Amino acid sequence: MTYTTQIKIMPLKELLDPQGKAVLGGLQNLGIQSVADVRIGKHIDLQIEAANEEEAIAIAESAAKKLLANPVMEVYHISVS
Amino acid sequence: MTYTTQIKIMPLKELLDPQGKAVLGGLQNLGIQSVADVRIGKHIDLQIEAANEEEAIAIAESAAKKLLANPVMEVYHISVS
Repeated sequence: MTYTTQIKIMPLKELLDPQGKAVLGGLQNLGIQSVADVRIGKHIDLQIEAANEEEAIAIAESAAKKLLANPVMEVYHISVS
Repeated sequence: MTYTTQIKIMPLKELLDPQGKAVLGGLQNLGIQSVADVRIGKHIDLQIEAANEEEAIAIAESAAKKLLANPVMEVYHISVS
């Protein structure tokens, strides 16, 4: 069966997110003042052929560890829909 | 109150996603064969000061339209957590 697995990769909370800070400045310049903070990460949709949901999550986890996420700077979260 | 609003921005289904195709090739080179398709988008967390959830969503929608998403190539989805 094909599972649609979603991996959300965000910069670690402890680290400054320069892209997010730039967008925050841009929003304020556009007059949107009520945004207090912006953090920008990646959202990756994987279509995975697997026997069951657990296997799909294990494959996504392996993909995140081996290629997609940088554990020094990022944290990832996997979900299946 | 501060609402954590999440905006997921993905390339339109109709369009080729070259970054996703590159990652798909990379995964196959690493021996992960069961991934059939990859699409890569952005995930943006906004901390929004608003009176209620509806107002927070409206502000996030305005931010997505005015700055974050490109309607010609991308589709966005807003959620509050």
